Amino acid sequence: MPPENDSLREFLGAAVDAANKAGQLIREKFYQTKHVEHKGEVDLVTETDKACEELIFNHLKQRYPSNKFIGEETSAAYGAVELTDEPTWIVDPIDGTTNFVHGFPFVCVSIGLTIGKVPTVGVVYNPIIEELFTGVRGQGAYLNGRPIKVSSQDELIKSLLATESGTTRDKSTIDAVTGRINSLLSKVRSLRISGSCALDICDVACGRIDLFYLNGYGGPWDAAAGAVIVTEAGGLVYDPSGKEFDITATRIAASNPLLKEVFVEALGHPQ
Amino acid sequence: MPPENDSLREFLGAAVDAANKAGQLIREKFYQTKHVEHKGEVDLVTETDKACEELIFNHLKQRYPSNKFIGEETSAAYGAVELTDEPTWIVDPIDGTTNFVHGFPFVCVSIGLTIGKVPTVGVVYNPIIEELFTGVRGQGAYLNGRPIKVSSQDELIKSLLATESGTTRDKSTIDAVTGRINSLLSKVRSLRISGSCALDICDVACGRIDLFYLNGYGGPWDAAAGAVIVTEAGGLVYDPSGKEFDITATRIAASNPLLKEVFVEALGHPQ
Repeated sequence: MPPENDSLREFLGAAVDAANKAGQLIREKFYQTKHVEHKGEVDLVTETDKACEELIFNHLKQRYPSNKFIGEETSAAYGAVELTDEPTWIVDPIDGTTNFVHGFPFVCVSIGLTIGKVPTVGVVYNPIIEELFTGVRGQGAYLNGRPIKVSSQDELIKSLLATESGTTRDKSTIDAVTGRINSLLSKVRSLRISGSCALDICDVACGRIDLFYLNGYGGPWDAAAGAVIVTEAGGLVYDPSGKEFDITATRIAASNPLLKEVFVEALGHPQ
Repeated sequence: MPPENDSLREFLGAAVDAANKAGQLIREKFYQTKHVEHKGEVDLVTETDKACEELIFNHLKQRYPSNKFIGEETSAAYGAVELTDEPTWIVDPIDGTTNFVHGFPFVCVSIGLTIGKVPTVGVVYNPIIEELFTGVRGQGAYLNGRPIKVSSQDELIKSLLATESGTTRDKSTIDAVTGRINSLLSKVRSLRISGSCALDICDVACGRIDLFYLNGYGGPWDAAAGAVIVTEAGGLVYDPSGKEFDITATRIAASNPLLKEVFVEALGHPQ
């Protein structure tokens, strides 16, 4: 039986509190890294990643000790946890790690809650430019407390597209990434690459970006929160092939409903 | 004879005032466009572009009636004005026009002053995320009043690269753009595309971005202000071929001095 709206709003409140705590730490470290840049910055990020994940997990476990937890750092250290039907918090303590290291202001905390494997509560918080995206299944999506919705664009050629260059650098992956950009560039208005998958999805949710796709991101923590936010904003998440979105598949496309068919066609049904 | 420092600071003050005025208008219209998006948004932008350029020109002409003026909108309407040795204000009222239309928060006012064709005063102001970059020849570069400098990165593979996808959509241009991205992606840490040439240059100036290049941007208004800001932040602007930067050539590369040689080599000396 799905939880009552009241308990969903409690989940949301707890996630927002946790995101704010982590955001404060990220903000402090973000400005510090500018001074220690290129001196063990990978360690520093790992340290902040871990500290934020621990902070978020502690905050949520105190309130919801029987819930399940999946985090990027915990998964990296102890292996992937299988997603079950139990209420499961899926956390990326810092999405946009490279941006964090370099001081590029597109970084965020991403906290999603799935119930019955369905993304149900989502919080994506960029503490640097102070943007808090929230969504609760059946209750709409918000940016800093104001309702948001996807764009009403229905023409590909007038659409703003976002993707990421990824972290895999072998020749066949780079060829696939740039080949797809090549074939899409003539069909859309322009391209943006921000460095944060979770923020890209939220940018679709608030209509700044019309189209987003990514094949091969880090894990469900990059998309769990964004998926509920963009859906509640009137958008769709789906596999770039047009099939149903699978939160464990690390492949995602997002747009308003009007653009889905033409976007999937333009993406050329990638396998 | 070069002007005294005092008069350069006066120029800067006038440019900052003009940028703030235009920024206020952009901010108002930025949030409005979200509601009228896709209903004659091109007219709206042109309207705001023109209004901002007029506002900036009026402000500066009142103080400096004998100076020369080059603006994106004026040039579009009345043809290009030749750059002379006279003090010349080079203005892009809104850099990142597509972002402005879509509500993507990377937009800015760019106001540069050349004296003897040398970029001497630069103001780049993003009124949405409230970042004001300033630079005066010989007097350093600042972000919101705090001194900035380029990164100290000296390895290409640890560098964050920015470029733009451009506005030309013929097949040979798209092939050149994506071909260059393809060859660079294996050599750098990651790629960002923000949609604003002037902000890209300023991102190099404050060390968020290590490398930026663009072949074929709109005109000198995209680079005049940024060029003095990044130079005063300890960086270099140069032609992507490694030759001297020509403000009228619509080709630019920027980095710290340590990366110039390897970056030019990686760019493959584009013609």
